[in-house]
Amino acid sequence: MSLEVKILGSNAAAPAHHRNQSSQIVRVQNQTFLVDCGESTQIQAKKFGIRIGKINHIMISHLHGDHYYGLMGLLSTMHLYGRETRLAIYGPPGLSEIISLQLRYSETSLNFDIDFHELTPGGSDVIFENPHLTVSTFPLNHRIPCSAFLFQEKPKRRRINKNVLKEEIPPVHINALKDGKDVLDEEGNVRYSNEIYTLPPRPSFSYAYCSDTKYDESIAEQIKGIDMLYHESTFTKEFVDRAHATFHSTAEEAAIIAKKAGVGKLLLGHFSNRYKDLSPLLAEAKSVFKNSALAIEGETFIVDE
Amino acid sequence: MSLEVKILGSNAAAPAHHRNQSSQIVRVQNQTFLVDCGESTQIQAKKFGIRIGKINHIMISHLHGDHYYGLMGLLSTMHLYGRETRLAIYGPPGLSEIISLQLRYSETSLNFDIDFHELTPGGSDVIFENPHLTVSTFPLNHRIPCSAFLFQEKPKRRRINKNVLKEEIPPVHINALKDGKDVLDEEGNVRYSNEIYTLPPRPSFSYAYCSDTKYDESIAEQIKGIDMLYHESTFTKEFVDRAHATFHSTAEEAAIIAKKAGVGKLLLGHFSNRYKDLSPLLAEAKSVFKNSALAIEGETFIVDE
Repeated sequence: MSLEVKILGSNAAAPAHHRNQSSQIVRVQNQTFLVDCGESTQIQAKKFGIRIGKINHIMISHLHGDHYYGLMGLLSTMHLYGRETRLAIYGPPGLSEIISLQLRYSETSLNFDIDFHELTPGGSDVIFENPHLTVSTFPLNHRIPCSAFLFQEKPKRRRINKNVLKEEIPPVHINALKDGKDVLDEEGNVRYSNEIYTLPPRPSFSYAYCSDTKYDESIAEQIKGIDMLYHESTFTKEFVDRAHATFHSTAEEAAIIAKKAGVGKLLLGHFSNRYKDLSPLLAEAKSVFKNSALAIEGETFIVDE
Repeated sequence: MSLEVKILGSNAAAPAHHRNQSSQIVRVQNQTFLVDCGESTQIQAKKFGIRIGKINHIMISHLHGDHYYGLMGLLSTMHLYGRETRLAIYGPPGLSEIISLQLRYSETSLNFDIDFHELTPGGSDVIFENPHLTVSTFPLNHRIPCSAFLFQEKPKRRRINKNVLKEEIPPVHINALKDGKDVLDEEGNVRYSNEIYTLPPRPSFSYAYCSDTKYDESIAEQIKGIDMLYHESTFTKEFVDRAHATFHSTAEEAAIIAKKAGVGKLLLGHFSNRYKDLSPLLAEAKSVFKNSALAIEGETFIVDE
């Protein structure tokens, strides 16, 4: 199992230089999450082979238009294509009202249900949990309430070492071994030693999406040691004053957060229109945190073993 | 002077086959109108060399998303690019509330003013008038209130025939001649005969935008003899039942309206996703009304002498 991030839009504020506005697909544990949904996300999804019917969850970080103006169009297209599967939407207070108002005036009743989960401004919530995965939020430092999303696979079970355990044994014993226990015989002696018959669990992966935010060291505390971090990097450091004034970050600041948190890899995004060529942003981040990459349209980033 | 229509989006319901949703630019008498604004209109405008700062007026025919989901993104980009010029928006009841709600949650105060003109559902209004041009609405026959837009240049003045009138004469006399009067001398005799010294006015052009609507003969009454008509043609006639059920028209029905009204030219648009190849729609319309054309992305249609 792996964790996969596919970038649908990388630009801040307005589309420019053939870059769309924020949106990405996160696939993990058989769940498909759409994270932010700038205008034209449905077109980008089609361009990059994403089947929108597979999306189970849509998360909107905040209510600046470059992060959600594609949502109504996407919902309409899901409806037109006959979707009947429930859809979970996670967003700030106001998003539900914005959706409802537009559906009301178009006299449209969607043929699928929406489970709307309102995010707590300034809060940290577990918004999704199943036996394999937790998705939680924590607050970013932006002009309006904005949430980061943290995807964490739960610890996995030990694996049967099939090179050693060659005979068939009852499922109850398999489960005991996977749970890290020894299997005993009727006299209470060890029949199958966990140490011998199992291998360590596969690693659990983690990913955080942090957009939009000014530089804030509390972010590093929230994401200690995660495998991959998307952190906005709207400007190069020469525009640090502009970054602070607009509650955004420079590429260097994104890299400092990545370094402080000790993450595995840093993805840069939410680029200002002033950069047609993004290489200065990448170079700036790499000078602080080497394993940095530009999260541009169509790129896929996979965390696996 | 001419009247020019530039197509930014031609598809119904959802984007497909590299076709965007309804939007077009109408340029007439130094005014630039954006008529409908489906998702990604701002990207289409850029692609086809339209400077969005030049748009004076935005008209939204109705509140189905394929006709307005690009509006908020366009307004945001105008704001980001520093627009300060007032913008007129004409739309159905509800549109103003939809815009205000989204601006409120994004805590955005646009740096230009919007003059919002609410269209009367089922009504006919003059929504714009200056000495040269009138734009009016009339009702279409759709599932929710939907307005057609009719652009009519006012009758122009007669022109001085410079081949005959070679001397300089006072402006008051020029104006009298242009107004169709003779210029008299002090004794009351004809000094400059209008018939001799002027040429007939240049023609005045007219254009109507009719989307979305089921077949309705009252439309033909509203647009008698206009130069150019855009009429939706969502389906071919084999799907006439579906067209009626969804309050849309077939290409044949659009052509019948064009023929009954005696218009100069018919533009077809708002194509269903089921048509990758649009030639059956064009052929069907042409069999009834020869001067028909597909109003697809990037095409420009000009009415002039």
